[in-house]
Amino acid sequence: MKIVTAIDSMKGSLTSKQANQIVAEVFRDEKIEVTEIAIADGGEGTVEAFVTNANGEVISVKCHNLLGDEITADYGWLGEEKTAVIESAATCGIQFLKGTSETHPHNTNSYGLGEQILSAAQKGAKRIIIGLGGTGTIDGGIGLLACLGVEFFDSQNQLVSPIPRNFKKITRVETQKMPMMLKELEIIVAADVKSTITGEKGAVYLFGEQKGLQSNELATFEEEMTHYSKLLLEGAESQEGDGAAGGIGLALRAILQAKVVSGLDLIAEQSHLPEIIQQADLVITGEGKIDSQSLQGKVPVGIGAMAQKHQVPVLVFVGAMQGESDEFEKAGLSVIIPIVNEVTTLNEALMYAEQNLRQAAERTKKLLFLLT
Amino acid sequence: MKIVTAIDSMKGSLTSKQANQIVAEVFRDEKIEVTEIAIADGGEGTVEAFVTNANGEVISVKCHNLLGDEITADYGWLGEEKTAVIESAATCGIQFLKGTSETHPHNTNSYGLGEQILSAAQKGAKRIIIGLGGTGTIDGGIGLLACLGVEFFDSQNQLVSPIPRNFKKITRVETQKMPMMLKELEIIVAADVKSTITGEKGAVYLFGEQKGLQSNELATFEEEMTHYSKLLLEGAESQEGDGAAGGIGLALRAILQAKVVSGLDLIAEQSHLPEIIQQADLVITGEGKIDSQSLQGKVPVGIGAMAQKHQVPVLVFVGAMQGESDEFEKAGLSVIIPIVNEVTTLNEALMYAEQNLRQAAERTKKLLFLLT
Repeated sequence: MKIVTAIDSMKGSLTSKQANQIVAEVFRDEKIEVTEIAIADGGEGTVEAFVTNANGEVISVKCHNLLGDEITADYGWLGEEKTAVIESAATCGIQFLKGTSETHPHNTNSYGLGEQILSAAQKGAKRIIIGLGGTGTIDGGIGLLACLGVEFFDSQNQLVSPIPRNFKKITRVETQKMPMMLKELEIIVAADVKSTITGEKGAVYLFGEQKGLQSNELATFEEEMTHYSKLLLEGAESQEGDGAAGGIGLALRAILQAKVVSGLDLIAEQSHLPEIIQQADLVITGEGKIDSQSLQGKVPVGIGAMAQKHQVPVLVFVGAMQGESDEFEKAGLSVIIPIVNEVTTLNEALMYAEQNLRQAAERTKKLLFLLT
Repeated sequence: MKIVTAIDSMKGSLTSKQANQIVAEVFRDEKIEVTEIAIADGGEGTVEAFVTNANGEVISVKCHNLLGDEITADYGWLGEEKTAVIESAATCGIQFLKGTSETHPHNTNSYGLGEQILSAAQKGAKRIIIGLGGTGTIDGGIGLLACLGVEFFDSQNQLVSPIPRNFKKITRVETQKMPMMLKELEIIVAADVKSTITGEKGAVYLFGEQKGLQSNELATFEEEMTHYSKLLLEGAESQEGDGAAGGIGLALRAILQAKVVSGLDLIAEQSHLPEIIQQADLVITGEGKIDSQSLQGKVPVGIGAMAQKHQVPVLVFVGAMQGESDEFEKAGLSVIIPIVNEVTTLNEALMYAEQNLRQAAERTKKLLFLLT
């Protein structure tokens, strides 16, 4: 019997690799062959997932975070494919904003992501996969572009500092000083492909407040972003995905010709997940929380769709389940299995996630084979 | 395929009958025959369980609670067997103590239980099953005995009022005025058969404080109980079970020749549960909370023992699970299945118990048959 585990990370407790290992250890025996595929959606855990599946390595580089502070940040290196995997949150993550006062989105930028891209290019990368998720910036990628040699001039032909506070001053964008090697790079953005750069569901209105904007600042910031984005777009239409990571999506696509794809599809392709699922008798996925009202875009739903094509049943281990099973079954998710054992707080659930997942896997295995 | 459901009540949320119905509804289909057996351990739910299984009726009688307040309390009547089923908590329950100040165990008694016994006897009962659990009294049964005509005299040959405050005054117990019909009754006590009337694990030291004694009153109350119990025992040895329900066990055994048995064994016998389990392919039990450290005496463990004899697998739905599955498996409990879905408070768990149990049953059924 062949089982494939492809469990998403459970935020605050287990990475995808850890969750797979726990469940695989329970199911693997003389009759059951288990293949573990690490999974991510472009957000947290994307580097670990790619590195795990491709047996790659982790590279640490000195660079700057969204506040301009010097940090050491990791990215993944898949040597055989000459591919780097970068999480924008490693440098521009919202976690850096905690406890600081200099957090206004007017003043933060994605410069550090540019440094990581440069480092990967210098290492010989032919392809860079950039996971956009969990960022604290709304800088339209101006920081990373400046780092990569793009220049922003005002009406006096003076260079302006690459932060959103200066968006409205910019009248000209110059890309001539970008190194040639960057122009030859294949850049792939793993992101939520639905977000737009401006508008109601755009980078400003949808995520601005959670990144530090006051509600009465949204309209002004939107106006500034509109001005800036038009300069990058040079008359072209904005696309879905441009709003990802506070507009980093737009910068990478418009200036570096990045392709924006779903994070799950990307990792599925790299790990041959669809083919592995086709050969399997059972797929086990999971995530922190599942809710029948918000199934869209969730990792288990993507896995469910792949498995449904070949009528392979899918089990889903979750920290929290809300909703009725009919909805889940339609999405190809045969059985949702909550892993909590009793009345519990969020802290306890996170603390005991490993034990709870192992016990849930054990009882699930017993139930699956009890009557066979 | 034959399944038997025998789920204990889940305190504060579902009765045994309700829990069985929810699970049976999920499992019952054209291929699965489900037999529902209501279960109780002699405590709360004992009347409902017997009445449900025997298709009996519920009788309401006016009587008094442990405070002497007039109440209407129910007992079960199994007409065919001329058997009454009484829960001592219906009149002497600890729930009556809440919010009152007159709660000292010196002043409360089990008179109302005597009234229910009399009512059943007058109705023509040949046998009375009395479930001892959840009482708030420590009266050694003096109240119920007085109600049934037993007299307690002091050294001046004066009748003393039947409350524990007067234990030490009593010098003589007289049973001559008990009606004949009571002496011919078969009384069966369904109880925790381990508790003793006095001593470290006796009625006073083990439960005294939870019934309202201060810790510095325990020694005096124990001394008073020792004096009283010696009078009832008339030189005989005290037995295990005498301490049940604050000594009601002793009164029923010593004066009314009651037999003390395990509540689960009694209901199992009445409902032919062992034979039904022997014929089943799967047993489903459950309870509010299971803990590998305190398996003793729990309903699922009793069910597990019955099923183990015939190698029938047992599933256990629980509100809360603590401990490791090895311990449970040794007790014949194949798989423990917690029914909570996510991080949750006790109140929410109780409020959503029905929905949670139904969903847990649904996913369990799917898992059982997923690979068959």
